Order: sequence, then C-alpha cells, then structure tokens
Amino acid sequence: MAYDVRNRLSEVRRIFHRLPEPGWREFRTTAQVVAELEEIGVDEIAVGREALSTDERMAVPSESELEPWFERARDADVREDILERTAGGHTGVVAVLEQGDGPTVGLRVDLDAISMEESSADDHRPAAEGFRSEHEGYMHACGHDAHIAIALGTLEAVKDSDFSGTFKVFFQPAEEISGGGKAMAKGGYVDDVDYLFALHIGLDHPSGEIVAGIEKPLAMAHLTATFEGASAHAGKAPNEGGNAMQASATAIQNAYAIPRHSDGMTRVNIGHIEGGTASNVIAEEITIEAEVRGETTGLMEYMRTELERVLYAAAEMHDCDVTPRIISESPRADSDPELRNLVAAVARETVGVDRIVETTPFGVSEDVTYLMERVQQGGGLASYMLVGSDHPTNHHTPTFDIDESSLEIGVSVITDAILECSRRRP
Amino acid sequence: MAYDVRNRLSEVRRIFHRLPEPGWREFRTTAQVVAELEEIGVDEIAVGREALSTDERMAVPSESELEPWFERARDADVREDILERTAGGHTGVVAVLEQGDGPTVGLRVDLDAISMEESSADDHRPAAEGFRSEHEGYMHACGHDAHIAIALGTLEAVKDSDFSGTFKVFFQPAEEISGGGKAMAKGGYVDDVDYLFALHIGLDHPSGEIVAGIEKPLAMAHLTATFEGASAHAGKAPNEGGNAMQASATAIQNAYAIPRHSDGMTRVNIGHIEGGTASNVIAEEITIEAEVRGETTGLMEYMRTELERVLYAAAEMHDCDVTPRIISESPRADSDPELRNLVAAVARETVGVDRIVETTPFGVSEDVTYLMERVQQGGGLASYMLVGSDHPTNHHTPTFDIDESSLEIGVSVITDAILECSRRRP
Amino acid sequence: MAYDVRNRLSEVRRIFHRLPEPGWREFRTTAQVVAELEEIGVDEIAVGREALSTDERMAVPSESELEPWFERARDADVREDILERTAGGHTGVVAVLEQGDGPTVGLRVDLDAISMEESSADDHRPAAEGFRSEHEGYMHACGHDAHIAIALGTLEAVKDSDFSGTFKVFFQPAEEISGGGKAMAKGGYVDDVDYLFALHIGLDHPSGEIVAGIEKPLAMAHLTATFEGASAHAGKAPNEGGNAMQASATAIQNAYAIPRHSDGMTRVNIGHIEGGTASNVIAEEITIEAEVRGETTGLMEYMRTELERVLYAAAEMHDCDVTPRIISESPRADSDPELRNLVAAVARETVGVDRIVETTPFGVSEDVTYLMERVQQGGGLASYMLVGSDHPTNHHTPTFDIDESSLEIGVSVITDAILECSRRRP
Amino acid sequence: MAYDVRNRLSEVRRIFHRLPEPGWREFRTTAQVVAELEEIGVDEIAVGREALSTDERMAVPSESELEPWFERARDADVREDILERTAGGHTGVVAVLEQGDGPTVGLRVDLDAISMEESSADDHRPAAEGFRSEHEGYMHACGHDAHIAIALGTLEAVKDSDFSGTFKVFFQPAEEISGGGKAMAKGGYVDDVDYLFALHIGLDHPSGEIVAGIEKPLAMAHLTATFEGASAHAGKAPNEGGNAMQASATAIQNAYAIPRHSDGMTRVNIGHIEGGTASNVIAEEITIEAEVRGETTGLMEYMRTELERVLYAAAEMHDCDVTPRIISESPRADSDPELRNLVAAVARETVGVDRIVETTPFGVSEDVTYLMERVQQGGGLASYMLVGSDHPTNHHTPTFDIDESSLEIGVSVITDAILECSRRRP
Repeated sequence: MAYDVRNRLSEVRRIFHRLPEPGWREFRTTAQVVAELEEIGVDEIAVGREALSTDERMAVPSESELEPWFERARDADVREDILERTAGGHTGVVAVLEQGDGPTVGLRVDLDAISMEESSADDHRPAAEGFRSEHEGYMHACGHDAHIAIALGTLEAVKDSDFSGTFKVFFQPAEEISGGGKAMAKGGYVDDVDYLFALHIGLDHPSGEIVAGIEKPLAMAHLTATFEGASAHAGKAPNEGGNAMQASATAIQNAYAIPRHSDGMTRVNIGHIEGGTASNVIAEEITIEAEVRGETTGLMEYMRTELERVLYAAAEMHDCDVTPRIISESPRADSDPELRNLVAAVARETVGVDRIVETTPFGVSEDVTYLMERVQQGGGLASYMLVGSDHPTNHHTPTFDIDESSLEIGVSVITDAILECSRRRP
Repeated sequence: MAYDVRNRLSEVRRIFHRLPEPGWREFRTTAQVVAELEEIGVDEIAVGREALSTDERMAVPSESELEPWFERARDADVREDILERTAGGHTGVVAVLEQGDGPTVGLRVDLDAISMEESSADDHRPAAEGFRSEHEGYMHACGHDAHIAIALGTLEAVKDSDFSGTFKVFFQPAEEISGGGKAMAKGGYVDDVDYLFALHIGLDHPSGEIVAGIEKPLAMAHLTATFEGASAHAGKAPNEGGNAMQASATAIQNAYAIPRHSDGMTRVNIGHIEGGTASNVIAEEITIEAEVRGETTGLMEYMRTELERVLYAAAEMHDCDVTPRIISESPRADSDPELRNLVAAVARETVGVDRIVETTPFGVSEDVTYLMERVQQGGGLASYMLVGSDHPTNHHTPTFDIDESSLEIGVSVITDAILECSRRRP
Repeated sequence: MAYDVRNRLSEVRRIFHRLPEPGWREFRTTAQVVAELEEIGVDEIAVGREALSTDERMAVPSESELEPWFERARDADVREDILERTAGGHTGVVAVLEQGDGPTVGLRVDLDAISMEESSADDHRPAAEGFRSEHEGYMHACGHDAHIAIALGTLEAVKDSDFSGTFKVFFQPAEEISGGGKAMAKGGYVDDVDYLFALHIGLDHPSGEIVAGIEKPLAMAHLTATFEGASAHAGKAPNEGGNAMQASATAIQNAYAIPRHSDGMTRVNIGHIEGGTASNVIAEEITIEAEVRGETTGLMEYMRTELERVLYAAAEMHDCDVTPRIISESPRADSDPELRNLVAAVARETVGVDRIVETTPFGVSEDVTYLMERVQQGGGLASYMLVGSDHPTNHHTPTFDIDESSLEIGVSVITDAILECSRRRP
Repeated sequence: MAYDVRNRLSEVRRIFHRLPEPGWREFRTTAQVVAELEEIGVDEIAVGREALSTDERMAVPSESELEPWFERARDADVREDILERTAGGHTGVVAVLEQGDGPTVGLRVDLDAISMEESSADDHRPAAEGFRSEHEGYMHACGHDAHIAIALGTLEAVKDSDFSGTFKVFFQPAEEISGGGKAMAKGGYVDDVDYLFALHIGLDHPSGEIVAGIEKPLAMAHLTATFEGASAHAGKAPNEGGNAMQASATAIQNAYAIPRHSDGMTRVNIGHIEGGTASNVIAEEITIEAEVRGETTGLMEYMRTELERVLYAAAEMHDCDVTPRIISESPRADSDPELRNLVAAVARETVGVDRIVETTPFGVSEDVTYLMERVQQGGGLASYMLVGSDHPTNHHTPTFDIDESSLEIGVSVITDAILECSRRRP
C-alpha cells in the first residue's frame, strides 16, 4: 500500500508543525490536509466555504490581516481551486468516508496555530531535528499539529477496518480564537452525526494516560468595547471633553466587581487596553478587550449582560458612547457519560495506555462545544477526550513539544472507539 | 428715653446668646426680636409667614424635629399670635421704618444657631459671666447673636437720625443650612430695596477692621441621594440583589473625579453616608449627603449637573434607583464696588475703625446672596461687609466668643453708610 | 415517671419560643435549659463560664447591650447562681450523662434568637395559640427553639435507653452571629467526643425528610473596619483632610473586585456603612461592616487577606488609617461520610421518615464547624443533619413556624443514631 | 548690505516652515539657524552641547527615534561640525552679540515642530504658495517658525542699532515636550542675563495686538508610570496574577479625584494608556501617561505628590509594582510688572500696534519658565510677551498659519524694548 499514515504519524505531524498558521488563515494547512486526504482516498472532501456557514464565522481577521497569509500560500504553489474555496477566511475541511450501513460517527480536530516565536534552542526537538516553524513568529504551541496527524491516522485506520457506517472528520479552523466552531457546527455536515469524538493532546496528562471525556468546559464570550468621548485640552478645558479614560477606568473597576453568582463559577477579565493620545489631552477613544466565562452557558450570559450594563453606564457617566462587540463565543457542553464509558472501555484494552481517567473538569473554553451541542440536541452523543503526552514545557510556550509516541496511542483508542460505535449502532 | 439699644448692645446680644435655636426653629428668637422691635417702635413688623415665601423655604426640618422647639417656645410663654405665625417652620421677621421720602435701604442679619455643646470652661466668658446657652447642645457659635444686636442697634440709630427714606431690617432664619435666604428674597419685602447691606462679624478679622464688601462667595447646592436597590443574601444569592453599596461607592469615586472647570474654582464633597443592614446582606438602601460649590452660579450648576449624571449612572450600573434631592442652594452674588466704596468711605471716619479692607474673597457660601441677587437684578446695589472682632477661637467651636466692643463699631459704620445712601438717593 | 419531654416536645419548644434572646444574651434561655436538665436528671451541668473558653468568644456585645437582657432575666427571677455564671455574656450549657463504658457521643444545638418583630397575625400559629414572643422585637425565627426541644427529648430518650458510654449535649450560644462556636469548641468538653451530631430543622426540607449530613458549609469571617482620616472644610480646605469617604469608596469598589479563585467559590460583601458628619465637611471617620466566605477555610482566608490588603491600600491612598477587626469567624467542616451513612441507615427504619437525602451542599455558614473540626482533628466523626419540617414561610421571616410533628422524628433519628454509635464503639 | 533679514522675514519664516522637526531632533533647524547667524555675523555661536546642560535635558527620545532625523539631516548635507555637536539629541543654539558696555539682554525662542500632517488644501497658504512641510507627518503648527524669524530679525536690528551691552539669543529646542527649557537654563549662558524677553505669536490675539507680558503660566509635570504585575490565565487562575489592569483603573479613578486645592487651580490628566496582551490573560503590564499642572509650582508639586501616592497605593492594592518617571517638568514664572510696563510703553510707539494688553493669564505651560526663573533668581527681570497675529484656525491644527505682517511688528517691539533696556542699564 502506497500510503500509510499510521506508520508515519510523526512525519505527518512534523509537516504541519513546520507550517503554523493562525485562525482563519490556515490556507496552506487546509491544502496540505486535502493533499493527505487525497492520498488516503475518501468519498467526499468539503473545503472551506463548502464546509462552513460563512455567516456564523466569528473573530474573522480583516482583509489586510488575511492577505499576507493568502499570498504566502499562493507563493507556496497551493492549488488554485483550494485557494478559491478558502479565500476571504474560509479555511477548514470536512472529509467523509462512506462505508456501508451504520451510524454516522464524527471526529473533530483543529487546525490553527498561535502567534509565538518558536524556540531555536538545541534542546528543543523541533529545532534540533529540523522541523521548527517556517513561519517566523508563529508556532504550533498547542498541539494542533498532533491532532491533525491523529485524525488522518484514524481516518486511514477506519478505512482499512471493518467499520460499517459513515465517518466524518472535521478539520476545524480558528479554534484558538473561538472563531470556527460555530461556523462548522452550522455547516450542515454535523447534522446527522450520531457519535462525535474530539480530542486534545497533553494538557498535563502524561503519555499513556487517557481521559475518556472531559466535563465542564467554560462557556465563554470574548468582546471588545471602544469608549468614544471627546478630546479637549486637559489644562485649558478639562470640563469640555467626554473623558474616555475615566469611562474605561470606571468600567474596569466595576466589571471585576460584577457579583459572583449562586449557580456556579463565573469569570471576567479585561485583558487589553489602549487609547488616548498625549498626556495633556482628554482621551477621546479607549478600546478594551474583555472576556467573560461561566460554568454554564447561562452563567456566561449573566456575566455578559452585566458587563454590558457596566459598560453602558460607565460611558453614560462620562458622556461617552460605547458599543460592545462580541468577537467570539462558545457554549458549555459536557461529554456524555455513556460515550465516556465506551471510550474508557476500549482504552482499557489499548496497548500503551496505562491509566484511564473517566472524566475531569476542563476549566477552560473550547469551541468544539458548538459541535457537541448540535450533536446532543439532535439526540446523538459526544465526548471530548484527552490523549496524554509528556510535554517538556507548558502549552503556549516557545519550547512546547509533545511525545510523538502518544500519536499512535491516540489513533488506536479513537479508532477502537469508532469501531465500537459502529457495532452498537444507534 | 425709655429704650436705647445702642447703650446696651452687649446686653441684647447676651439675651440672644442664651437662647440659641437652629434653622427654622427660631421660635423664641423670633418672639424676642419682635419684643425688641416693639420697644424701639417701628412702622411694620412682618412675622414668619408674612415675611417669607413659604414654598421657597429649603432644608425645612420634619414636623417631629420642629415640634420640641415649638413646644419649648410655648413653655417659655411666647405670645400665641407669634407662635401662630411661625408655626410649621416659619420663623423670621421683617421690620419696616418709614421715614419720609428717599431710597429704600435694607439690612439683613441672620437668626439661627448651630448644634454644638457650648463650653462651660471658666475662661469662656459666656460661661463665666452667666450667659451661656440655655439650650443644651446648641450654641450661637457663629456670631448671629451679635448680628441681631447690631441690627437692632442700627435700627434705633437710624430711627433717631435724620434718615429720610424707608429702612427695612431682614431678620432671616436658617442661614446655617442655607434654607432661609431664598424664602426671604421671594417674600416681597426685598423687591423695592435700593441699597442692601449685610454683615458678618469676626471671620479672622480683628476688632477695628472693616471689610467694606466681600466678593466671590461660593455658589452652593446641598443635596442628598438615596440609592435603592434590592437586598439579597450575600452568601447564597449574591447575584440577586441590586447592590446599593456598590452603586454608592462608584458614585462617590466618580463624584470627586468630576473634571475641574476652565472657568474657575469648583468643589464637591460627599460628607455623610449611611446604609445597609448586616454584613451578610446585600445593601438595599444607602443615603449620601453631598455638596457642590462653584466660584460662580454657573460653575455650581455645572457641578450639580455632573454630580447628578454620576449618581444616575452609578445607580443604573448596579440596578438601583436614585433620586437626588436638593436640600438647599445659594447663588453667587458679589458686593457692588460702588457700595463698597461708600462703606469704605464712611468707615474711614468711624471712631474705633483702624483698618479698612476694600474687599476680600469670601471662599464659602452664604444665602444672603439670594437677597443680594434680587436687589441687583432690580437695579439696586448690595454689599456684604465684615465687622472685625477678636475671637478667642474659631467660629463653630465650643469656645467661640466675640469682642463686644465691636458691636458699637458695627452699628456706627452701618448707620453712617445708611445715612449716606439716604443722602445720595438713587 | 414524673418527667417526659418526649411526650411534651411541643410544650417545651413553645416555652423557649416565648423567650427569644439574641446571641450572648440567652440568660433566661440558659436558666430554662438548666431547669429542664435538672428535671431530667443528668450527671453534670456546666453553665456559662464553665462550658466556654472566655477568650475565644467572638462578637460579644458591649456591656450596655448585655445589661438590659441580664436585668430582664433577674426580673424574671432567674436563679442567682445561674446569673453569676452567665454574667458578662457567658451564656450556654453543657449537659453530661455518664452511662457506663463506651464511646463519647455529643449532640450540639444552639440557643439564640434574632432581632425581628414576630407576626401577630391570626394565621400565625404562635400568635393564635398564645406562644408568640414575649420579648418584643425578638423572635425564634430560625427554629433554635425546636433544636433545644429535640436536644432535651433526645437526652431523656438516651437516658432511658440501653446506651452505654458518655453522652454530652452542647447548648451553644450565639450561633446567629457566629460568636459561640469557637468558645464552646475550646471549652474542653468537646475534646474527647468520638461522635458528634448537630442538626438544623426545616431549611426547605419537608416534614418526613432527613438529610443524613450536610457538606460544604461556607467558611466565613465577619469584620469591621473604620477608616480614620482628618476632617476639613470641604469648601475652604479640600486638600487638607484625609478623606475617609474616598478611602472607603475605593475600598468597597476594590473589595468586590477581589479576583475569583481557581479553587472554588468565594464571596465578599460590604453590608453596612456609616460615617461622616455634614455635607460640607471632609469625612473624618467611616465604618464599614464586611463579610468574606469561601468554599474552604483556605478560600475564606484568601478573601480575608485580599480584603485586608485592599483596606490598607485604600487608606494609604487617601492618607487615612484603618484597622480591620475580625468580629467572628467560622471554618469549613464537612459531615463524615461514614457517620452520614450511619444516620441514613437508622433513618430508613424510623417511623415518619419517608425520604432520606444522603447529603446536600449547605451553602451558608454555621459555627458548629468549630466543634466538628475539633472532633475530626481528634480522630472522631461528625455529622450535621437536617430534620425536615414544613414551614409556612422562610426562616428569618416574621411568620416563620415549624411543623411540630417533626420534633419527634428528630428525637427518634438522633437517638437511634446515638445508640448505633454506642453499639459500634470507636 | 548683503544680508537683511528684516526685509525678508517672510522668506526666512518659510524656510523654517518647510523643515519642521520635533523636539531634540531639530538637526536641520539648528544648522539653518547657524547659517543665518553666520550671514548676520555675531560674536559667538554656541551649538548643541555647548549651549545646553546635557544632564538636565528632559523627554529625550530614544536613539532609534533620533536616528532617522539625524540621518535625514546628514542626507541634506548639514555640515559635519554641526552634526557632531548636536548628535544624540543636543539641538539648539545660543548666539551672542557683544556691543560695548551695558546690560546683558536675552531673547528666547523655540525651534521644534509637532507631529501633525499639514493640510494640502488650496486655501492653506503654505500649500498654495509652496512652502508646506517637506517632512510628511510633521508641521510647524504652533508658530515656532515665526519665532525663529523674529529672533533673527531682531538680532540683525539690534546689531545695526546703537544698542550698548550684550545681546544673547536663545534658540531653545524641545519646547513642545517641555524638554529643553531646563537644559538651556542650566547651560550657563542665561546666568548673567539682566533682562530676558520671550514671545509667542498668535494665541487668539489679532494682528496689531501686543500683550506686554503674560502671567500665570501653569507649572506642569509630565510623567509616565508602568504598573507591573504578574500574568495568569484569567479562566484557570484568576487569583494568581497581579492584575495591572485593576491597578491602573484604580489609579486613574483616584487620580482624577485628587482633592482640589484651596490655594488655586490644579489639573490632572491621564492622557494615554496601553497594556495587557489578550482578553484571557491577566494583564501583566500597563503604562499610563499623565500630566499634572498647578497655578503655582507648589500646587503642581502637590498634585504630583498626591498622584504618586495614588499610583503606589493602587499598585500595592493589586500586588503590582509601579515606578512613576518624570518625563518633563516646568515651573511657574510670571512676567515682571516693571518689564511688562517697559514693553507696553515701547509698543505704544510702534507702528502697526493698535492695541496693548498689559497682561493676561496664560493658562497653559511653557518651559521658558526655567529661563525666567533663573533670571529672576539672579535679580534680573523677565517678560513673556504675545505678538498678535491673525490665524485662520487654531494652533495645533493642520491649517494653522500666521499673518506674516505681524513678523515685522514683533521685531520692532522687541528691538525697541531691548534698546530701552540698554538705555536704562540695570
């Protein structure tokens, strides 16, 4: 057989590791996924616009931010038909394998990298072994390269197996900025999924450990708000301005003071601020970037509503305008215990797995919840599992790396879980 | 001659010193003024309701606060016809002397005392010489007793003089709480005044010094605001309340941060706060007492408007209601240079005056400005003069006292100024 | 047998219901408990000082607050020897029954009432049936009267049983203000307890329901802080004061904004504020009452430490002093699963119990945790159970009442649990 | 005569108008001034380092900000000896004319332009007549080009006159950023000045009007402060960071709330803020730019001290560090009435002057006050005059321009004032 991803999981992962692209700019990544899919051979490949609901995309960068990445892809000889379908921030792929009667099983992975300079230290394996990022200032520092490799390996394994049913792999763009989940969930391909799997590698779980399905990811909304007042000379006419600086300070103080909620955990943060011109000018415009989270979607919405109330009142207090703008959002969705149990059962039989955790609270946000929610609302089951992998340093650090031996474990557990679903039928 | 206040200025001042009554509760004081006026003999005595515009009174205490003072006056055998006219917080008197053709000249003094326990120390003259306050907890600690004595002495002197015209003396209630000025200004008697004099004793000016007319009193508004939210158990349901505590803290922080104004000096203060029930309950109600001032009436109004904006926005931010309520207010009005010059000129000739200051910024508020403003708007002139008097300790302290020799100087300067007006005719 | 509390549980409860006394002022209540204990006959009765660690008492009222209640007790002919031992805020009792070899089992109940006017409506049973509060303005609105009745009934039942061991009943004062738990925990009598039971009636659990042992009470600290600055005239010298108003507003805003904690639920509230004198005076002194809570003792301590940091920095910022003072505090302590199971098992056999809840999160604070912590640190087991009882309106409302049929159920379950402990031996 | 600036004042002004350079980067401007001085012929030309106290320079840009302007000057063939003396941000010139016995008279003008795109509209004369800025993004929008022309014209006029004494012209750099005044004041050349003149053109005074000497410029300090905390994941570990965002918001709110001062006008502004990374990260670092002003140097220092107290306490409150850094500062210095009178007297005789204002409050800051203060402390006199000039739009706007006819008026008044000083002798 000419193509065998399973035997070259490391190699595939390293191809993607070298080509990190940030959210909605995964043009080369999309093309490379398509190329791998064509090698494997699947029944349908939906690319970009075909795989997404355009209007449901969130946090899409401006044209000027998309452009250089698009051009870089073109310069790297990405096929024109792919470029066409991904233009304007429409990255991502859905692959479909039709293999007889049976349930529809889905697997979702994510494509995007983050903005971070990868280490070139000798003891950083990607640097030492020549697969460090070729896109300076960007890096697969979260492990999505591994996710892609596992998805491709699983696809090939399922194809070669006696799986009976339909298998769909969702290569989702823009996970880091919570921008792609909703667009893919509303893209049509998720609608008939009976069993959905998703995964993350590492996250402080060592090689050999499997978490059968996480619970309690946080619902999240990321928003910006620009306070617009009026400038004035701070010495000569301090009373004439509408002071966006005072408005934003009042808003920030009160945002952190939004009451805790009896129903559970909430979070609020103002993570970035910028504005004003000079020390002697009343600030006309200040922009803040904020985030609210909640243990449930309802709690997140409570925080978002309260934050908006604070923003509007702070603006009113200082004769400014403000319009909060939601950049991205994700709901809460938990792994179904039934599917978690299935994963745990097959993992127990998997070579290389030496510890199984049934579930663990996730504590952060992940926009796979849009896909999980859609499946669950349709009567299906979903589980977001963790594939342990020793990592020398934390995710999102310049020296992050994974233990590539965990790639094969991931493929095995997921493939076996998929086969088990096939046997059960819904 | 049976009655000669000028020869007994000290005695008269001491009668009033013994009977301090706070704003709108000067029932005995009013009766005593009437008694003195009847001794002197004047053409008209308007008492209480007759002298005031009822609806323009500000900072009127509640019935339960008025009652004990009213009863005390009744117990002291105050005449029923006086009680009737002053009932319900309608203290104050206007005395009118008609003495032929000529201008209408006014003199305004104030009647009220403050809430303060007077010293009973041996070196505090009122204690040592037996004219300490008989109303425990209240004291003429600002010198209004001296003002009354000077006004009565001046009235007698004018009556005995060749003054030709009409002379009106305004015994205004509730100056300390800026409550009576507007009501007296709108009471009708001020309308035809051509020249208005007002005075204050002491204020760090030594005996023998006369300030011909102050300038730049601050315009002022005193207001209260009650934030009304909803209580909730702070442990079990922190999100359910409308937190009046947070609303008031936000309001206070932002009130002090109201921008300074290019047109001149402004002030803001929150001087009292009270509210909430227990540490484990979200505060349902908090009341603050605030004050704004400005170098001009416009600046005061700028501060009041901005403060109200802050209050409303802070309430909105924390899901509370708030209704600011103006308790009292006074505009800015300056002494007219022309009348100041007249005062300075006569003072130069007055025995006992050894230093004349033409004008000085006042720096605080005084609701005589309502009367001054009314006179000036009608084309008349007004001057608020200071009669120096050594005082052992500051005004508004338990050991405040005046140098009684300054009473006669005050009478002389004012009487001569009035006679000079009479000569000039308007 | 002359005395049978079990047959007159309602009657006993109503005696106490008529005599509500607030924390550290349960002088008549203490005396009445002693009287009942003497009727029953026990081996030792420790009263007041004998039962408590004086220095560990918290939230003790001032002498002037204690005095009227002490006098009222004296007027009601409370025995002098009891008054002596409870004087100065030393209420409470420990009763000891020695009944052969075996474990030491404890039962803790609480004595105090709250400040609330009891309803006199016809449909409020205590009013209708003549056992409404005789102490106007105070009321057993939380059910502690029922707790006392259950404790006495249990004591009598245990005495009459084949219980072998030592049985101690802790009648703890000042639970509502979290003031008595620590003092009783450090009083010596808890030290050798092997099994400790505590209970609460009602709390939205219907008659017939038993919660075998609550978990997750909140750790709590209640504190006050007085900001002390310097007053000044807000118009003439706004820069001269140390503005306690600004300091407290800054503190309040930042207190609510203390970051949420990754380890679990936290709470903070400023529930009362008072200070300042007049609107035109920079506030010299402001006092706030605050409370922090945490899901664990550590989380509460995090909040307390951060709150103190906020208070000190806010004072420093506005040139004020502040000294936070802890009024009362309670740790977190959970019911032991083993003892919960024992309670659940005996409850299953109890007539009148139709629903058993193994555990429930408590969500508020209770200073019984000091006694539980002490027992658990000594190797013993503790469980805080809930005895369901229909109540027409919420706890802490003027029409609160209980279903008296639940008193007997409480006695039965607790007695059987105690006997079961006796059989097991530690 | 080969060189006659007075006849070509417009031409000279336009040369400088075309070459706007911001503070400490006036390399070409310095060279051009030197060239003009050499044409006129003076006794001493001190350039850059020779004219300044290096250590007293404030607000000096970083090397990378200086570099492009330095290179641009080199590319424009500025003489190497000038470049050498101005390298590293040492722009500015002092010219000295020795002309016999007599007083030392000084004239100070400023060299720098501001960052602003100049209008290219047809009705903007510099655009229409071909002398618009050649340095895109920078513009002489305050009139310093006119100041230079007037200074050169005056120098030539004084040289040609019967002036007896020493005349020094101070071409000060970096006025707009209050960076150069102190360095030039401490550079040595000011030390023996008996009479110092300075000027500003326009400022809403029409052509033909002269203000003999302004008073009450505001003392000013410009500072930055960076709050440094610790970042943390806002969802997973909100309690772990030191939140620079909260610290700065608290600081800003309280900065604006620094109490007004009884001694006079104060100002505070936070005009720029920037910091934090992403919405889900606790902000580690936030930088603010602030400014305080006061009617007197003492009031400015009060504000600076209070602001620093606020900054430190806000940092402490949120477990951050902060170090305020003074960028630039200027004291208050008033025009001496005696010298103002002299200017007014000569202006009355000047052709083209049709209105003389003796003095006017300045209301903003100007670092010439360092030079004035030095002269006045040495017993000399100083006056900062305004030369009226119609200007179509406000200073610091893209269409600012002057009425060039006022250049000659300026030269005449100042020259005559200098000659008058020479006659008086100190």
